[in-house]
Parts: sequence; structure tokens; C-alpha cells
Amino acid sequence: MTHLPMPRRQFITGGLALAAAASFSPLTQARNPQFTIIGLVFDDYETLDLHGPVEMLGHVPNASIKLAGKRQLARSYQGPSVLCDLDLTRTYPCDLFLIPGGLATRTLVNDPELIDWITRQAAVSKRVFSVCTGAALLAKTGLLDGHKATGNKMAFDWIRSVGPNVEWIGKARWQESGKYLTASGVSAGTDAALQLIETVHGKDVADRIQTLAEYDRNRDPGNDPYAVEA
Amino acid sequence: MTHLPMPRRQFITGGLALAAAASFSPLTQARNPQFTIIGLVFDDYETLDLHGPVEMLGHVPNASIKLAGKRQLARSYQGPSVLCDLDLTRTYPCDLFLIPGGLATRTLVNDPELIDWITRQAAVSKRVFSVCTGAALLAKTGLLDGHKATGNKMAFDWIRSVGPNVEWIGKARWQESGKYLTASGVSAGTDAALQLIETVHGKDVADRIQTLAEYDRNRDPGNDPYAVEA
Repeated sequence: MTHLPMPRRQFITGGLALAAAASFSPLTQARNPQFTIIGLVFDDYETLDLHGPVEMLGHVPNASIKLAGKRQLARSYQGPSVLCDLDLTRTYPCDLFLIPGGLATRTLVNDPELIDWITRQAAVSKRVFSVCTGAALLAKTGLLDGHKATGNKMAFDWIRSVGPNVEWIGKARWQESGKYLTASGVSAGTDAALQLIETVHGKDVADRIQTLAEYDRNRDPGNDPYAVEA
Repeated sequence: MTHLPMPRRQFITGGLALAAAASFSPLTQARNPQFTIIGLVFDDYETLDLHGPVEMLGHVPNASIKLAGKRQLARSYQGPSVLCDLDLTRTYPCDLFLIPGGLATRTLVNDPELIDWITRQAAVSKRVFSVCTGAALLAKTGLLDGHKATGNKMAFDWIRSVGPNVEWIGKARWQESGKYLTASGVSAGTDAALQLIETVHGKDVADRIQTLAEYDRNRDPGNDPYAVEA
């Protein structure tokens, strides 16, 4: 992929430019304070790692989801591209920082600038949520050291090698530890997102969103059909 | 949403411009002929309606997925925007035409230009696949008349009213009829996509993709946890 870096104001027009420029408003609504989510994106991200959680989190009352990436666009492994609302020249205080995985993580763990940005972005995020091989990017920062965590089971040996001081759990659809939530491969992120919504916003909100999406949710993190020996 | 219409070449740069301009190559590979997919997008499309199927279909060997829309970008109901690779000034012969749903369909069923484009695009597509309230857009063309079909169960009365001559099935995770595949709400599209992959590319391919995505697939179209009286 060869996008030109950033001359963003040249092509983001109208309402979207306002949304991108404003970052998050400090205003909150009386009943539902804004729930702010930043999702990291990069070329060859895995589609459902990002969009499964986005589907569920986007239905939380007063949620605001923005994508952050190095370039104007990030092309998924599957083909379609998403717009980066925000660049990586600064960090964005938020309620939730979402890190998807994908083929690209194999090389991105060796991108010191990106790992540094993830470290700084995690510091200003109330919670951090990785999906699939996004766990390798998060582990590379060292922030998961001493924490229980999980990740894609098809790439588990590699993920473990990136974070040798993490307590990796081989049988877990998702794993919570402190402010960190790590989901297993791809579709596990959708289940983990609903669990996070239940934790933060309550069971009624999570159940309403599940119904709206006609989703058959896995509620048990120990029910991991793709478990491996840790 | 207020995007300026189309000055696309101004901002799509590098490899992506080539991909967008080239549409689909007539070349096929010996072992795996190209499997070409066009996905319609519009502002306020529902994230998982599109990206669940994209996740699964994008792992079919030699798949090519392109998004088509009226403007440069289509903003999902959940916030993030996707790039439209193709515009609606022409149609694109393809193996599969994917029509997601979302809040926008309530007004788009009354957009004669869009309904006309969907009609013409369906004519040059080997198969047509709607998800959720995308069924209303497809029904509005009249192409589903006399066919069995399903759609989002939370909006089923409305969908039925848009296609009074369709045989709507109230208990179906998805429904096949001729070249048409219609899925129930949101997450049902992901199960239907795997069924379509199995039908077109075989069980081994579908099972491999399910495993890769660590997905717990619903294989039974009659297992519809959100069924309603038809």
C-alpha cells in the first residue's frame, strides 16, 4: 500500500472534517456521559477484529468512535479501506482504546514509533482492549507484563514470543486484567466487547445491543472452542 | 452528513487509485478463479451488516471486494467511515452483490436513483446477498417478488410493507431463493456468508475460514433465536 501521508484537510470535507478536527467534546449529556473510543488502524488490519467491537460499542448510548492511523486511509486485509479520523502525532484521552490485529502485526511489532504511540495512547486511556494479534502490539509495549492475557490461538506461539513476561492464557475467549482486556482471535472481540459493555454500562445495555444485532453471544470467557495449551 | 460529491482522483493516491480505477481484472488464476464481490455502502449503514460478510468472504481464495457508493466516503451508523472504491455511475459485473442494511434504508427505499442502480447492479451479478434491512432495498426493486426472503426481525413489519409480493419468512437466520440470499438482522449476515461460501466454494473452504476467524458458526438457517410470526 502506498498512500501519501496525511494532507488530510484537502479531502475531508463538510461534517466529517468538523468531527475529525474537534476530537472529543468535553461536553457530556446529563443522562449518558459520552463514551469515547479510539481504534487504531493500519493497512492489513483484520476486518472483524475492528468492526465486531465497533458494531457493539457503537450502540452504547452517546458513544463516539474515532479511528487513528498513520495515513489517511487504512486498507483491511479483506480489501475495503477505512478513513483515519485522527493521526498519530498526538494522543487522545478516551474511555477505551481498541487495538485490532491482523497480518500487519507481524511487522508492526518492530515499528518503534508505533509501539511508542501505543504506549502513550494506553497511558491516556481508561481501558485498553486488544483483539486477536493486537495482543502482540500491546504486549510489545511491556504494559501487559505480569498481567494475564490472551490472543489469537492460531498465532499463539508467536504472540507469546513477543511478550515473554506476560501470563498468557491458552483457554480464554477473552481475559481481563486491570485496565486491560484481551480477546482471542477475530470473532472473540465481538463477545469481549459485549462483556466490556456489560461491565461498564450494565447488563441491560449489553442485552439490548445483543438483541438489536440479533447476536448469539458467548457469555463465558472459559468457553473457548479454539483453546490451545498455554 | 455532508461530503462533497466525488472529486475522487484528488485524494485517492498510489496503489489504491490503481485498484479503484481498474475495477476487476478479467484475468483469472488457474487454480482459483477470482471471486468478485461488490458491496453497496451509504451513510448510516450498519457496521456488522457489511463487515461480518466482508471478513468471511475476504478469506475466500482470490477474493476481491470493492465497495460502491454515491460519495467518496460512507459513514457507518457507529461512526467510522469506509472508502467507496467505485461510484454508482455504472454497474459492475461480479459474482456477488452485497447489500447491507442500517438506519438509512428507511429513507433510501424512497430514492428512485438508488433503487434503479440496485436493480441494474443485481442484473449483472451472479448472486445477490442482502443483510438485515438491506432486504428492504432489494425488495423495493421488485426482484424478490415471488421469492422466499427474510430480514431484520426488529424491523420485520416495515420490511414486509416494502415488499408486499415477497414471501417473507419470519423464522429464518437466512433464506436462499434462486440467486437471492437474504439474511436476518446484523450478525446473521456473518452466518449466511459462511453458508454462501460453503455453497460456492465447498465445506473445506468455509470450515477453514470459520476456524481462522475463531467463529462459532450457526449452520442451521432454521435456528433463528430472534424469529417472529410472519
